[in-house]
Amino acid sequence: MTASVAILGASGYTGAELVRLIATHPGLRITALSADRKAGMEMADVFPFLRHLTLPKLVKIDEIDFSGIDLCFCALPHATTQAVIKELPRSLKIVDLSADFRLRDVAEYEKWYGQPHAAPDLQKEAVYGLTEFYRDDIRKGRLIAGTGCNAATGQYALRPLIAGGVIDLDDILIDLKAGVSGAGRSLKENLLHAELSGGTHSYSAGGKHRHLGEFDQEFSKIAGRPVLVQFTPHLLPMNRGILATTYVRGDAKAVHATLAAAYADEPFLRVLPFGALPSTRDIAGSNFCHIGVIGDRIAGRAVVIAVLDNLTKGSSGQAIQNANLILGLGETDGLMLAPVFP
Amino acid sequence: MTASVAILGASGYTGAELVRLIATHPGLRITALSADRKAGMEMADVFPFLRHLTLPKLVKIDEIDFSGIDLCFCALPHATTQAVIKELPRSLKIVDLSADFRLRDVAEYEKWYGQPHAAPDLQKEAVYGLTEFYRDDIRKGRLIAGTGCNAATGQYALRPLIAGGVIDLDDILIDLKAGVSGAGRSLKENLLHAELSGGTHSYSAGGKHRHLGEFDQEFSKIAGRPVLVQFTPHLLPMNRGILATTYVRGDAKAVHATLAAAYADEPFLRVLPFGALPSTRDIAGSNFCHIGVIGDRIAGRAVVIAVLDNLTKGSSGQAIQNANLILGLGETDGLMLAPVFP
Amino acid sequence: MTASVAILGASGYTGAELVRLIATHPGLRITALSADRKAGMEMADVFPFLRHLTLPKLVKIDEIDFSGIDLCFCALPHATTQAVIKELPRSLKIVDLSADFRLRDVAEYEKWYGQPHAAPDLQKEAVYGLTEFYRDDIRKGRLIAGTGCNAATGQYALRPLIAGGVIDLDDILIDLKAGVSGAGRSLKENLLHAELSGGTHSYSAGGKHRHLGEFDQEFSKIAGRPVLVQFTPHLLPMNRGILATTYVRGDAKAVHATLAAAYADEPFLRVLPFGALPSTRDIAGSNFCHIGVIGDRIAGRAVVIAVLDNLTKGSSGQAIQNANLILGLGETDGLMLAPVFP
Amino acid sequence: MTASVAILGASGYTGAELVRLIATHPGLRITALSADRKAGMEMADVFPFLRHLTLPKLVKIDEIDFSGIDLCFCALPHATTQAVIKELPRSLKIVDLSADFRLRDVAEYEKWYGQPHAAPDLQKEAVYGLTEFYRDDIRKGRLIAGTGCNAATGQYALRPLIAGGVIDLDDILIDLKAGVSGAGRSLKENLLHAELSGGTHSYSAGGKHRHLGEFDQEFSKIAGRPVLVQFTPHLLPMNRGILATTYVRGDAKAVHATLAAAYADEPFLRVLPFGALPSTRDIAGSNFCHIGVIGDRIAGRAVVIAVLDNLTKGSSGQAIQNANLILGLGETDGLMLAPVFP
Repeated sequence: MTASVAILGASGYTGAELVRLIATHPGLRITALSADRKAGMEMADVFPFLRHLTLPKLVKIDEIDFSGIDLCFCALPHATTQAVIKELPRSLKIVDLSADFRLRDVAEYEKWYGQPHAAPDLQKEAVYGLTEFYRDDIRKGRLIAGTGCNAATGQYALRPLIAGGVIDLDDILIDLKAGVSGAGRSLKENLLHAELSGGTHSYSAGGKHRHLGEFDQEFSKIAGRPVLVQFTPHLLPMNRGILATTYVRGDAKAVHATLAAAYADEPFLRVLPFGALPSTRDIAGSNFCHIGVIGDRIAGRAVVIAVLDNLTKGSSGQAIQNANLILGLGETDGLMLAPVFP
Repeated sequence: MTASVAILGASGYTGAELVRLIATHPGLRITALSADRKAGMEMADVFPFLRHLTLPKLVKIDEIDFSGIDLCFCALPHATTQAVIKELPRSLKIVDLSADFRLRDVAEYEKWYGQPHAAPDLQKEAVYGLTEFYRDDIRKGRLIAGTGCNAATGQYALRPLIAGGVIDLDDILIDLKAGVSGAGRSLKENLLHAELSGGTHSYSAGGKHRHLGEFDQEFSKIAGRPVLVQFTPHLLPMNRGILATTYVRGDAKAVHATLAAAYADEPFLRVLPFGALPSTRDIAGSNFCHIGVIGDRIAGRAVVIAVLDNLTKGSSGQAIQNANLILGLGETDGLMLAPVFP
Repeated sequence: MTASVAILGASGYTGAELVRLIATHPGLRITALSADRKAGMEMADVFPFLRHLTLPKLVKIDEIDFSGIDLCFCALPHATTQAVIKELPRSLKIVDLSADFRLRDVAEYEKWYGQPHAAPDLQKEAVYGLTEFYRDDIRKGRLIAGTGCNAATGQYALRPLIAGGVIDLDDILIDLKAGVSGAGRSLKENLLHAELSGGTHSYSAGGKHRHLGEFDQEFSKIAGRPVLVQFTPHLLPMNRGILATTYVRGDAKAVHATLAAAYADEPFLRVLPFGALPSTRDIAGSNFCHIGVIGDRIAGRAVVIAVLDNLTKGSSGQAIQNANLILGLGETDGLMLAPVFP
Repeated sequence: MTASVAILGASGYTGAELVRLIATHPGLRITALSADRKAGMEMADVFPFLRHLTLPKLVKIDEIDFSGIDLCFCALPHATTQAVIKELPRSLKIVDLSADFRLRDVAEYEKWYGQPHAAPDLQKEAVYGLTEFYRDDIRKGRLIAGTGCNAATGQYALRPLIAGGVIDLDDILIDLKAGVSGAGRSLKENLLHAELSGGTHSYSAGGKHRHLGEFDQEFSKIAGRPVLVQFTPHLLPMNRGILATTYVRGDAKAVHATLAAAYADEPFLRVLPFGALPSTRDIAGSNFCHIGVIGDRIAGRAVVIAVLDNLTKGSSGQAIQNANLILGLGETDGLMLAPVFP
């Protein structure tokens, strides 16, 4: 069986990454591609690296006939997404890559995104898309809300630790280093090669980054009480990859054992031997997440470092993993591509 | 059918690239991996990006039992290769990635590589591995000599033009821009990130680059008379990719038409519309080669620009393409991976 | 004596580079800075790397009182510049960094820039600003038209050769590799770090680059007959630097000797020993230009490679060198800063 | 007055950076340059970016006549340095850039550097070279031990806070991002461009980085009791620059006010307005250090981010600043070079 899929918002990086991954996926076939401002163009003109593929022309969303489509990937900007999804056929399965349905409490959405939620009813049926922790709900779901790329990285490092009670819930700090493709194809001075290459800076520091909404929601749910983490992201001169350095209080060996046990059977999550720490180079272009743990010279402190590719495991790979589940395909289908190094 | 393969010299970049590509190849299974100085190590310790794969441990070549192995990829340094291949079982099919068997005339080998050829008998049976032009010979071959990455790029731009008689044979110039992975994992000051990033320089200029031996051999053979090209490579701060800017005398439209016709049915070679020129970004990580042609304001001159990934189409992807042919597999099997962008 | 200078267009890279260089210049003092859209802002907010300097606030041009100003650097976009300079006081010395007054023949300007010249009278008094070749005119000039960065690089490689009659005038080819700061602070997708880093492509190929107008004008003037060169620029993932690989027909030793003799007393132009070739890394951040010459294996061909920093010797450093001459200061004043490596 | 200086270990990055800075320093003249393995070579052959300077040839240390030399910069590897300095004339002023004399307690040296200290007597007279905090001692000193680049960055962020009692001494965490030139010109696989570019990883994590010895020594001294910080460095694909993200407990406004007051008159240390955070791009190539402070959404927590150029303020610029003091020159002489951007 080959499922027929549409990609809405195919002219951005996550849309193109979906196409890249589906190109060698045995069970998915792209039937429609939308891009608002670039409607009428060939995908190969927007992304020449996809030139070898035979793909439908980019169209506007309302030009798509959804009748034969099994699943729709939504790679649109947040806010836009709510309005678009409301108008899609109810029979369509949807894997959303935007932020629009990640926060179950619409008040939280309004707080972090600065505007009221436009589709609170849809929000109710949305399933949070961090695959390894919501597998059963995703299999049964209709609308999957993909996890934010930073939020995914931090959660892979921390969820089993919070669930397992092996760390102090009031002293969790995430210092994150992110590659620039996470900012999308937006035209901003600080994203120019001349400005970004060869340097680094923090952004959204001081508790202002929107992915904190996801951390708060998920960590508090696991703990059964409010958990607030401290979170500082930094932008690095690299295209793909996130490295989250996570500082926790707890026994480092117990921290490692808890993570190793939690992820022992996960196809994409790899816990390194105790003391070994990961590099973003080793997961670039792939759906893998590597996690390392080390203790500190100060007893009772541990550092957990998780790396993943923001475009793959952090968004489009994750989306396909969820689509595989919804569609009854093998969870790893099309996603075992090795990282690209060097 | 799954063929069993060995990779000799698995601790270098081309060895690792073979493993990366074979990881999702439907018809190949890695049975043995050798690395002289790193014998005894796990591949995941030498290349952590391959951690998700179950691979044989690195061993010395003489520890390998070749009895069940169908084909051997040789990714060893030049000169070493000749000695090694001489000792391998005659029944083994071999795809060599080194320079050792590329030059049919052993005197040419000695001229360009500075030492006598150690296996002139083997040289006689070697087939030059530029797949698209030696397909039938490769299918019937036992020992395939992979084309040099720069030599492949230049030949894709020029062979049909020389064969078609549409350009002046005495005025061909190749200005080439190469990514740093082509230099391998060698420890040299000028390959350090601190030295290489953010700048460029030429190397082996003035007609000294060894791949000129391949250009001379192939172009002269096609033309039926000596053809000498001028060739200046430059090293760029990028990891993967070669861009060959090829300057020829001839009618640009005829040049374009000749290339388009020659490659119309080639799965990996894509000739862009006349006037469109390629970027290395659009082929990185893939086995594709993009070629563009433009005329100059000076009548009778044309520029042909070809791009490919030196580690894939320029060496390891090419090697697998040739292995597919020798083994009777589909030529594109395992090689349709999309480029990785951004 | 300290001369008082204004910089019009201070919010671009060449404007900022002027400020950087003037910061340690013993004879220049910045009295006014203009930036149209950023008027009212502090320079430190537009370019935080200049935070340590005490600078005038950015204003609109018509807010500047030019009465006490000795010299005005014009770092505005082309076309805009003509209109602005027409309105400046006649008593003001002007060093223009734009393309607006480089082409003596206004018909050539219209041909290359696609619009009629708006100040043909001013054009008549403009002096072409390639310092080493127009020194006396610059000293006596009022309006200096700075050379284009690519045009400067190519001219340093070729002018003495054309003048000296040591090369074939009908067979000159410039393959140029340029860093991205030459494209300015403009917001374009292909200048984003995610798109540009790690790859290369040609641009304005086929005889369409505007700096060809300068090559045509200058080389034809020197030769006393039309000289048309072939020119292909490429964009590289580096911030600063241009490397021009120049292919000529002539005796390589004579080519080297001619360049070495021509530049023997030049403070900023360095001809390397025969056979040594330069790297952009070795001039980044400085006003130096390094030039190397090598012969080819094909007799009668030579390669001349010139490197300079497009923002320094290619524009703002060159502008200050010219300003030094006009103002009667030492030509190298403030410009002997060493390159920054690594 | 121009002081005559020697640089021992001129073939490394910090040696070359000393030469770069001294090239435009009004009060220093280089009389001797040593490099063990490269003795006999011209500096321009080791570092072609210094080609425009007239410099003494590289020699072995014992070939140097120290009689006319006022001050000696020592840019040698640690351990080597102790042996070398012991043999230098007692009359010579020495600014050491190595780690050999930074730790006052030789037991601490042995603990962090894994070998006994070879010159404990010299250690006694060494002055710790963090200029802004040891100015008077440096002025009177003979042997200055330059601060480690990471250690300097962290101390600029934290010293006034520890001294001022505005932060919790038991909860200080430094997450540091370092450019690759800090690793020197050493030939290691992970420093190759192909391996390092486009990715990031931590190193010496878990309390093992040697600069912790300096943090322990200095912070405990200020506090009058043991202060142990947690410290995780990361290697980034950038050549110059360190960004230290420092997490403290305390009132963010008080933290900012304390730093602003402490550095109000410092020529090289710039505290940004509250809430503004620095970028390494804005100090690259200069002796400036920018510091920003922001509060967190969790009350009582503050983030202090300091950036400096590891080769300049972090080592060679700092060394010249100290040399200026010892020699009675102006402290900022030769060091007001603006950063280089982009």
